[in-house]
Amino acid sequence: MVRVSFPDADWLADVGAVEGVEPLVWNPRDEPPAEPVDVVVAPYLGAAAKLAAVAGVPGVRLVQLLTAGYDGVFDAVPEHIAVANAAGLHDASTAELALALILASQRGIPGFVRAQDKGEWSRPGFLPSLADRRVLLIGYGSVGRAIVQRLLPFETRVTAVASRPRPGDDLIATVHGIDELPRLLPDAEIVVLVVPLVDSTRHLVDDAFLAALPDDALVVNVARGPVVDTEAVLRHTGRIRFAADVTDPEPLPDGHPLWSAPEVLISPHIGGMSSAMRPRAIALLRHQLGRLGRGEPPEHLVRAGEYS
Amino acid sequence: MVRVSFPDADWLADVGAVEGVEPLVWNPRDEPPAEPVDVVVAPYLGAAAKLAAVAGVPGVRLVQLLTAGYDGVFDAVPEHIAVANAAGLHDASTAELALALILASQRGIPGFVRAQDKGEWSRPGFLPSLADRRVLLIGYGSVGRAIVQRLLPFETRVTAVASRPRPGDDLIATVHGIDELPRLLPDAEIVVLVVPLVDSTRHLVDDAFLAALPDDALVVNVARGPVVDTEAVLRHTGRIRFAADVTDPEPLPDGHPLWSAPEVLISPHIGGMSSAMRPRAIALLRHQLGRLGRGEPPEHLVRAGEYS
Repeated sequence: MVRVSFPDADWLADVGAVEGVEPLVWNPRDEPPAEPVDVVVAPYLGAAAKLAAVAGVPGVRLVQLLTAGYDGVFDAVPEHIAVANAAGLHDASTAELALALILASQRGIPGFVRAQDKGEWSRPGFLPSLADRRVLLIGYGSVGRAIVQRLLPFETRVTAVASRPRPGDDLIATVHGIDELPRLLPDAEIVVLVVPLVDSTRHLVDDAFLAALPDDALVVNVARGPVVDTEAVLRHTGRIRFAADVTDPEPLPDGHPLWSAPEVLISPHIGGMSSAMRPRAIALLRHQLGRLGRGEPPEHLVRAGEYS
Repeated sequence: MVRVSFPDADWLADVGAVEGVEPLVWNPRDEPPAEPVDVVVAPYLGAAAKLAAVAGVPGVRLVQLLTAGYDGVFDAVPEHIAVANAAGLHDASTAELALALILASQRGIPGFVRAQDKGEWSRPGFLPSLADRRVLLIGYGSVGRAIVQRLLPFETRVTAVASRPRPGDDLIATVHGIDELPRLLPDAEIVVLVVPLVDSTRHLVDDAFLAALPDDALVVNVARGPVVDTEAVLRHTGRIRFAADVTDPEPLPDGHPLWSAPEVLISPHIGGMSSAMRPRAIALLRHQLGRLGRGEPPEHLVRAGEYS
């Protein structure tokens, strides 16, 4: 039997019985279990900070995260322990938030909310539809694909960019390399950022990037806050529109000038936080634990630990 | 040559030369032209009110509207003159506004706008995604189809209802009849209204309709205001959420209680008003005038006039 700890009794109950798996409840902020545990399912929120406690649990071979991101987790979890992420878990939720930010920005929803609070019927004239827009998607992994699937029926023209050029797929004719950005930006009416945060993407959106965009272009950040140079954005708002689920600094402090910059819409990093998460997490856990229960190796390893 | 009047010089220039068509500019609020005009292209806004002036123009056989709706036009335009609407013109624009209202309501955008105005980073917890929702679409014409095309990639389950049951199409397995609503409503997490306003759809959404919906259901009106009984909605807000591009009365007066009801989002009837309208209107006019220039009968007649 593979002993698997869940962060609370609800997760254990929702995942239900899995052949070959003996479940228990352990939240890393509580006393470590005395008996060995093979697999620790991490809490959804604040996993990196909490997972240092795994060092005190005997027998752990694998930490299963409930997020695609794993910033800080390698430092927190002892090196011999493998780490699996939840690849694809947030695709649906994050992609639909990207569309929510795009559609709200294009069709004037923030202005309608403000007019509603004043009790005013106030028509803004013809705003730019999403239809007919040239969209530049930067980052073409699983979330990027989920965004394109949702964008195409809106009669958009989507160009995708990844770290290196490669042939396209069923959605996109060609994936351009990121070095082609100087040629692509002047044509982009909407830019969607969904790259991982690495050295080469930190402050990808800087003054030169923003200056290359046409007037009234919309930049949407559903990647990580530091992919965008916030100070540069503040120098270009008024000419460029901005919508973001992630910010730098994050949380955005009270009184930060980005809150009140014109044509800016901010959601508080809730891309993956929706009801879409839990059923997909349960399916992912049942699949992963099913493999382990049958003695198969885990999938989605971002660090192999003793499985290497 | 077919003489065609455009409501302003921009429309004439954007449509450009069409074989067999002699264009002129006439806005119905100005003096009628002395020479006969075969076809009058109506102004986009307020067409019904302005079109009474067509009676003073010699020779008119056809009024071409730039809207799908034609409320009041038959009364304004003399009976012997045919009327063509702009079927399909607003499909893209209205469908994307429907998605904007749905996504904004599901993912908490109005709350983020209000938090942003206070300069507060305030996370609402797990809100209901659009993914996994059971959506009931009431009205399955061309706008309804455009909405379904955009909804399906969001991993929704869509049920369509029309005035009479009929077989489905490439998007929908079956179109249910409107008499099946009592059975369908208790399962609907999101209801989208896109029916025409006729006697049988006036106050379709009444107390019984709303009472049949599950808690926290979202009702989205992109049809016409009187399809919904506003007073009934006000009795059910708190338990039911509501988003609408159209209201009754419309414009919604200052201080009306719907402005401040909980979980209500209102846009000021801008479904068709976006940049998507003009290129589609130009394509429609070129197609229609091309037919007339070749001596073919017009399409999209909603009243046949002398073409009958």
